[in-house]
Amino acid sequence: MSDLISALEEIVGPGQLFTGEAIDDRYRADIMGRIHDRPLCVARPRSTAEVAALLRIAGEHGVPVTTQGGRTGAVDGSFAAEGGIVLSLERMNAIEEIDPVSMTITVGAGLPLQAVQEAAEEAGLFLPLDIGARGSATVGGVISTNAGGLRTIRWGLTRDMVLGLEAVLADAGYDWKHLMIGSEGTLGVVTRATLRLRPKPRSVMTALIAARDFDKVVTLLRDFEADLGGQLTSFEVMWRDFFVLVTEANRAKRAPPMTAEHDFYVLVEAMGGDAGSDMERFEATLGRAFDRGDAIDAVIAQSEQERANIWAVREDMAGPMMRLVPLFAFDVSVALRDMPRVAEEISRSVCDAHPGATMLVYGHAGDGNLHFVIGIGDGSREAEHKIDLIVYRAVERAGGSISAEHGIGLAKRDFLGFTRSAGEIALMRTLKRALDPGNILNPGKVIDMAGGALA
Amino acid sequence: MSDLISALEEIVGPGQLFTGEAIDDRYRADIMGRIHDRPLCVARPRSTAEVAALLRIAGEHGVPVTTQGGRTGAVDGSFAAEGGIVLSLERMNAIEEIDPVSMTITVGAGLPLQAVQEAAEEAGLFLPLDIGARGSATVGGVISTNAGGLRTIRWGLTRDMVLGLEAVLADAGYDWKHLMIGSEGTLGVVTRATLRLRPKPRSVMTALIAARDFDKVVTLLRDFEADLGGQLTSFEVMWRDFFVLVTEANRAKRAPPMTAEHDFYVLVEAMGGDAGSDMERFEATLGRAFDRGDAIDAVIAQSEQERANIWAVREDMAGPMMRLVPLFAFDVSVALRDMPRVAEEISRSVCDAHPGATMLVYGHAGDGNLHFVIGIGDGSREAEHKIDLIVYRAVERAGGSISAEHGIGLAKRDFLGFTRSAGEIALMRTLKRALDPGNILNPGKVIDMAGGALA
Repeated sequence: MSDLISALEEIVGPGQLFTGEAIDDRYRADIMGRIHDRPLCVARPRSTAEVAALLRIAGEHGVPVTTQGGRTGAVDGSFAAEGGIVLSLERMNAIEEIDPVSMTITVGAGLPLQAVQEAAEEAGLFLPLDIGARGSATVGGVISTNAGGLRTIRWGLTRDMVLGLEAVLADAGYDWKHLMIGSEGTLGVVTRATLRLRPKPRSVMTALIAARDFDKVVTLLRDFEADLGGQLTSFEVMWRDFFVLVTEANRAKRAPPMTAEHDFYVLVEAMGGDAGSDMERFEATLGRAFDRGDAIDAVIAQSEQERANIWAVREDMAGPMMRLVPLFAFDVSVALRDMPRVAEEISRSVCDAHPGATMLVYGHAGDGNLHFVIGIGDGSREAEHKIDLIVYRAVERAGGSISAEHGIGLAKRDFLGFTRSAGEIALMRTLKRALDPGNILNPGKVIDMAGGALA
Repeated sequence: MSDLISALEEIVGPGQLFTGEAIDDRYRADIMGRIHDRPLCVARPRSTAEVAALLRIAGEHGVPVTTQGGRTGAVDGSFAAEGGIVLSLERMNAIEEIDPVSMTITVGAGLPLQAVQEAAEEAGLFLPLDIGARGSATVGGVISTNAGGLRTIRWGLTRDMVLGLEAVLADAGYDWKHLMIGSEGTLGVVTRATLRLRPKPRSVMTALIAARDFDKVVTLLRDFEADLGGQLTSFEVMWRDFFVLVTEANRAKRAPPMTAEHDFYVLVEAMGGDAGSDMERFEATLGRAFDRGDAIDAVIAQSEQERANIWAVREDMAGPMMRLVPLFAFDVSVALRDMPRVAEEISRSVCDAHPGATMLVYGHAGDGNLHFVIGIGDGSREAEHKIDLIVYRAVERAGGSISAEHGIGLAKRDFLGFTRSAGEIALMRTLKRALDPGNILNPGKVIDMAGGALA
């Protein structure tokens, strides 16, 4: 084994390979603060050539390799098992080129998303991709999980922004873009990406709107989409319990932008090309929604401060959530029309089994994406598995997906059969075997090459 | 062989399998009117189960299968070699579901694109995908080639509209959406698709604009994109020779919307949510372009008739092109900033070799997509190969792609190495081998499993 270690060290150079106690805890810590297994080593290559050399050596020794970006994934996809190699791309964080004519940016996979956003901004351009973990999540990470986030209605998921990739495969050459995106490091290591940028929006309109029932929420979405003719960027729906928890818990920090008496709250944001007339149009659309009774209360942000206050209702949830720990978080997708029924069904099943359970529901409605947070006062793996089954069975019955934007990783792997057919899973195995015959790339994540999935 | 034929006939039922002289010429005719090899048979299944059964039998006999939609592809991808089976999906043309809440439509792969557009329209919705061959190209065909077309700036390529696929694979189960899209029937047979619809636009603004040079064209694109805040749908650029040829040839049918003295013409179209204020904004943007000298002449369509006249400059080109026969047509992509240089380079090389050659240039500039039509008075395969080399070498030097939206098929297969690295081609072979181990799915198309590609 020390042969392997010295061969790896030779590749990355002195000070870039860590073993045993010298491995910093951050390479093992997930967003919930749990510390995962200690890997054999952590290697920090700084070039594609080094990554290729590392993979070759790992393959010769049959030692598994897990690629790490910002470790902000939610499904335990970026942690290595004992004896595995962690390939941290944090040093591959160069901004290699910004092309203002073609509006593209080419960066190393280890660059944090926020750094790309800022570089685009500085060039007078705009990267629409935005997620809460923007400061730590890397470009390689958002590609690996095909992250979605807050502006998918208008600009799509990561997949829709990636124009080119350089990936190092265990076996073949490099790149097959769409197969790599979303494969969570199990088919190759993405080392560099070219992302599509957009003209910087000249106007931002943000509103918090209350609605009586989910049908009204759907009507609001469709009307804003049609009226604003392509300017709608975010449509975040929050069920009442979520709104109450977040606004109450943060009341000392900021006054809630609206009373908590309504059943549904929607955060609507649009971006356009003309600050004056865009706001007029946004207000007119909202006015018509009031006239028809689709909106029963609303606040439009009149300043950047008010905008931040409205967004805080949706985003400043880490503190409030901590009050519910232990809790289980879910990221699923179902058809828009099925959302209230599925949420209701899960809530009833959870409360039948655990009277007094808490369940908060919110999500990117425009994208069919729902998040649940469920607390039953028991954080054991057993309890989690039972709640997993309740949630994923309801999603399966509705023909939805057990993962909307967080990937499969390890946490959801055994539930893959709830959302993919046996034929699809067989196909995934075929592809994994073809591209990674030695099963050294993030083994055990996404798909279990050894055994079956629950069904 | 008659065993095979009777087994196939048993699957599709009487009257749905044709052999020998009974095979209608249309199953062998491409868009240029050329008649390709006569296949062993043409089978017309009407269900996914029948497709699966046909593939199983074909696999057992080791007989290749080529899936056919509307046969409007431009790279000979949908024709079978002698002895092969043509799987025509023309009977799998059902509209299975329209979900107005989720805004999706699920259809059989054999349904023509225009029928989907019309079904969406009837439901008050909108399928943005639009290409010249809309009346004949099928959903399966546009998915198979990942067609782009006229509104990619705002809504992307086919890939961006496909939410789900049902595909029958030769080996595994079904579906892996992004691997299937663009694979031209070489990895599986797409039998059904769910497409994303959009709210029907309430306004359409169309203009023809003349510009002095390509830099001005780029400025126009960026200004319209930023000013219209997401409403821009089409930005079609035409070099002068193209404009002259089409408008002169069609002069008897309709008066040209503008004089032919300018070097570049751009067709700009936007769609929005408010007929009144959208047009005001469109006119204001164009006004500013005049003030800055980016636009030197312009016509805005004031009626559906005027809009049709402007689009005819770009689309009514089949007749005018016929005057240049024999001709060779190209569909490539290069970075926006490289477009004029690449066009100039190719033109010079072609004219050096063939004084008096004609070259017309046009394309979807917003998407990096350029079309060339080149006539040298010699339509032989030899001449074509020489021109192919000139074009693809120039594209390769610019780091572009030899196929923007027409696929690789057979016509471009041997040039794949101009645009994909050896590693990528090896990876494509690995995937093809994994998913179609018997090499029965459209063999010889996209990638030659036997030999190498030119480099």
